[in-house]
Amino acid sequence: MDLCAAMIFGGTSAAQPILFKPALLWVLEAVRDCKIEDLTVLTANTEVRALAENAGADCLAPENDADNICTAALRVFAQPHDILLLRGDMPLMHELFICAAYDAHQKNENDMTAFCCPREGGALLAAWVRRSALESAANAPLTSDGCPLVRLSEILQKAGGKVQTLEASFPEAALCADTARSRNTITAYVRRSILESLLDAGVEIPSMDGVLVGPDVTVQAGATLLPGTILRGRTTVGAGSVLGPNTLIEDSEIGENAVLNSTQCYRSRVLGGVNIGPFVHIRPNSVVGENVHLGNFVEVKNSTIDTGTKVSHLTYVGDSDVGKRVNFGCGTVTVNYTGKAKFRTTIGDDAFIGCNTNLVAPVKVGDGAYTAAGSTITEDVPADALGIARARQVNKEGWSRRFLADKK
Amino acid sequence: MDLCAAMIFGGTSAAQPILFKPALLWVLEAVRDCKIEDLTVLTANTEVRALAENAGADCLAPENDADNICTAALRVFAQPHDILLLRGDMPLMHELFICAAYDAHQKNENDMTAFCCPREGGALLAAWVRRSALESAANAPLTSDGCPLVRLSEILQKAGGKVQTLEASFPEAALCADTARSRNTITAYVRRSILESLLDAGVEIPSMDGVLVGPDVTVQAGATLLPGTILRGRTTVGAGSVLGPNTLIEDSEIGENAVLNSTQCYRSRVLGGVNIGPFVHIRPNSVVGENVHLGNFVEVKNSTIDTGTKVSHLTYVGDSDVGKRVNFGCGTVTVNYTGKAKFRTTIGDDAFIGCNTNLVAPVKVGDGAYTAAGSTITEDVPADALGIARARQVNKEGWSRRFLADKK
Amino acid sequence: MDLCAAMIFGGTSAAQPILFKPALLWVLEAVRDCKIEDLTVLTANTEVRALAENAGADCLAPENDADNICTAALRVFAQPHDILLLRGDMPLMHELFICAAYDAHQKNENDMTAFCCPREGGALLAAWVRRSALESAANAPLTSDGCPLVRLSEILQKAGGKVQTLEASFPEAALCADTARSRNTITAYVRRSILESLLDAGVEIPSMDGVLVGPDVTVQAGATLLPGTILRGRTTVGAGSVLGPNTLIEDSEIGENAVLNSTQCYRSRVLGGVNIGPFVHIRPNSVVGENVHLGNFVEVKNSTIDTGTKVSHLTYVGDSDVGKRVNFGCGTVTVNYTGKAKFRTTIGDDAFIGCNTNLVAPVKVGDGAYTAAGSTITEDVPADALGIARARQVNKEGWSRRFLADKK
Repeated sequence: MDLCAAMIFGGTSAAQPILFKPALLWVLEAVRDCKIEDLTVLTANTEVRALAENAGADCLAPENDADNICTAALRVFAQPHDILLLRGDMPLMHELFICAAYDAHQKNENDMTAFCCPREGGALLAAWVRRSALESAANAPLTSDGCPLVRLSEILQKAGGKVQTLEASFPEAALCADTARSRNTITAYVRRSILESLLDAGVEIPSMDGVLVGPDVTVQAGATLLPGTILRGRTTVGAGSVLGPNTLIEDSEIGENAVLNSTQCYRSRVLGGVNIGPFVHIRPNSVVGENVHLGNFVEVKNSTIDTGTKVSHLTYVGDSDVGKRVNFGCGTVTVNYTGKAKFRTTIGDDAFIGCNTNLVAPVKVGDGAYTAAGSTITEDVPADALGIARARQVNKEGWSRRFLADKK
Repeated sequence: MDLCAAMIFGGTSAAQPILFKPALLWVLEAVRDCKIEDLTVLTANTEVRALAENAGADCLAPENDADNICTAALRVFAQPHDILLLRGDMPLMHELFICAAYDAHQKNENDMTAFCCPREGGALLAAWVRRSALESAANAPLTSDGCPLVRLSEILQKAGGKVQTLEASFPEAALCADTARSRNTITAYVRRSILESLLDAGVEIPSMDGVLVGPDVTVQAGATLLPGTILRGRTTVGAGSVLGPNTLIEDSEIGENAVLNSTQCYRSRVLGGVNIGPFVHIRPNSVVGENVHLGNFVEVKNSTIDTGTKVSHLTYVGDSDVGKRVNFGCGTVTVNYTGKAKFRTTIGDDAFIGCNTNLVAPVKVGDGAYTAAGSTITEDVPADALGIARARQVNKEGWSRRFLADKK
Repeated sequence: MDLCAAMIFGGTSAAQPILFKPALLWVLEAVRDCKIEDLTVLTANTEVRALAENAGADCLAPENDADNICTAALRVFAQPHDILLLRGDMPLMHELFICAAYDAHQKNENDMTAFCCPREGGALLAAWVRRSALESAANAPLTSDGCPLVRLSEILQKAGGKVQTLEASFPEAALCADTARSRNTITAYVRRSILESLLDAGVEIPSMDGVLVGPDVTVQAGATLLPGTILRGRTTVGAGSVLGPNTLIEDSEIGENAVLNSTQCYRSRVLGGVNIGPFVHIRPNSVVGENVHLGNFVEVKNSTIDTGTKVSHLTYVGDSDVGKRVNFGCGTVTVNYTGKAKFRTTIGDDAFIGCNTNLVAPVKVGDGAYTAAGSTITEDVPADALGIARARQVNKEGWSRRFLADKK
């Protein structure tokens, strides 16, 4: 379709997400899958404009209501012979349907080949239009009353043009994401379709309850998705991994044979063989190495944790570089923020961090070093040394009996 | 319906919750929606009695089986011309149906207008009865064999009274919450109906999986409910807020543009623009101010947290009054309980609480004050001061090599 | 069926779980429910072999493809008159159907009574075979081309034997757990069937969304399962308990009137009246006593916690023996691991553990003793004493004003 271009009408609803991906991006991909590269999004909405620009499409603000199709299209597309006019909030509009309509458009030498949705009362929702037809219609008034595509069709028909209307092969193709209800309907359809494909590809989904997988997610055969698992953005999951229940992964890479139980993970890399959860939060820019264990109530942020390290409980690893086979005691805190700036913590291989240790960054704990439970470590601990900072214990005999007897 | 009254039979199942609200309260509201204010709940069950009294209805314990309808009603309602007799475990019995039946009752000059449910074998589940009919039936034996309303109908018909039977316009109206299965059926029906209404009102519900919204909850258009979200009690949610996945809110007010991810919140106020979760627990009597951030593994109880404060990780804020723009380090604990009594912690604006700080209440940290990481603060810290309580660090060189080599 | 034996073909898919229980174990139980005790699993798969042996079945590795049925069966079963040949991945194959087929087999004096599944194109999936028929077929070539049972049936019919084919009374009986999709289908069927039985038995399940209950779980009437609750392995739940939302219990015993909200519990005993959650993790070998409270972000591992103890927040109780009515402050850590070995912590009745206390095991806190907030306790604390180990607080006036003014 070298001589084709597409103009997409980007109303507010084009920014609405379907399976966590804005409707407009679904549409742009469907159009690009047809090898149409000359794309312009016509929009007055700043959020839609930003989405379009990030996706590499041209943007055009409509100058006034009257010119929002013919004039705009003629103004923008100097070259192409045929122009696809399309709403930006039809996420299920599919490449196959766009191409089939184009074939009919060419074969029947139509001036306009519109797609309608029987379910929505036959409303015209997209159309291929011949450039010459657009030029003739540009002289006719095209107000925004009613659907502009319907008006265009009427003008062309009145002028003796050849207009053909096709029905979408599956009615969902024409659903517009313009109400909360229609978004629920679209999501139900596309979500089920994605999960069925995963099942057929050998992904274990014992129950689909609460399982949502976005369109840009890849899950290898032999992985298991338990109830309540949400995978979104550009996420990949390796074979043999078990995610869920109630695990949420966004824009992350999960290796093979990884277990992530009741965990949330954002923009990070988690390598194979890890055992994570329940109740773990991995924040952006983290790398969790092979066979690492992150246990309950652990947070990792902007950190690298190397192979075989164990962070078993109630710990915050932030802005840190952690070596191999390190053992974190329960309640460890990397103190990364002074109130003015953030600093990094570095921990060598085989180090042992005592429980309830504060590591006040910038600070380094050397290979094989220990810190004593309850210590606030403000200075580097050399390799193989013990860093300790705590007060000596005193027992006050009979204290609690006196304390509880005291009326105050 | 000024001259009407209602007597509700409160068996044990009247206390059973449907969408977390006892069946009896659904029934009392339906009756009150018909402007019937003279309500008596006939019950021998203490839980049902407490529910009825809390809801402002009169209560009557049945004296014996025989008098449980006619005699009781005549004894209680001196005035009214027509009396509605109703089971207390029919949560879907609707105002519209009660009123329609009343209209038929009046127009046809019936002695008794019963509602039956075709699904349940035509059992009579509620009825309007004329006072004079009750008086005549009060002389006839009315044993508890079978359904008392069926017996009453038989007695009236035998005596030449005019009895009409109506079917509920939608069969769910007559479902009784008297078995686990029927409660599941009723919940499925009413839950779906509530969620459909929310969708139509513009609330985003990408998937209904695990989403339960109680009948006394208000959600503004433009809010989003992700899978596993449970809203119950008297809860309100503002526009633009995103709740879930797996967020549970009970009897709370959530402002606009609030994010509550995998959070549980009970009897509290959460203002707009907050960013909360995942894995946060807000306990009763808390106020979370505008734009506050509560991060992972944070608990708030009986506390006020003012605008823009950040409590990012692994922290307990209990019995505390916290100012604006305070920064809590990870692992902070408000030590509110001595074993004998509870005390409050007060933290001024712009204070900075170091990681793993214990704030031993009663204690005040002044505006702009700091506490050092790992300190146990037992005395007030003046404004702009640093409170520090910790031991100096010592490094013992080669310690861990010797320790690990030691066989013991 | 004293003179009967069963040979089960254990392909790889026999190890696949359905509701968290391997398909092979479902099959072995169905066979044993028919009182057939002489069981052999024919498998080359080590995982299947281990499952079979753990379940007390004999195992046989196939010597070559050709002898995988007749020869193997004749070699193994010296005695029985009739042999049941069965795939190991048909978890819904039911006792009733096996027995009914046996009755037909006997009554009609069949040589082979095969069960087929109409849904799967009539494939033969199991069969009763008379020993004498097996003996005659053992001389005929039986290659692994196609389904071995179909080949056996053809051989017997060609030789004039009497072969009858029955359809499973419910088509799910013949579903094989050999693809991710079929496992999803089987799970949907059996899961719904289990939940319907629970509803009929009086278990409250307001919504089935995300609720999965394994076949070896017992839930008493009057318990409630909220959305997202997963019960698996050999788990029992007492009356009046409320589990969920999002609670996962594995191989555990939960008492009566227990609340487990957003909790995961593995191989432990949790007694009645407990109040647990949200966000709690109980790891194996724990006993949580009556009326114990475990609050948010608490982990218990390999520990005993006695009646009435409260562990309210952000605490790790590991390898510990805790008495009655103990109060744990927030942030308590049992320091059970030195990097070389693990030790136990012992806490007496009515002790009070201060917030952010480290209990460095092996250590004992006596009855009624206190530890001060922020202390690292390395030595035993006698009964009624106070153990304290902390530095004195110093306030540095004006420090934070100077610190923040400093550009560095």
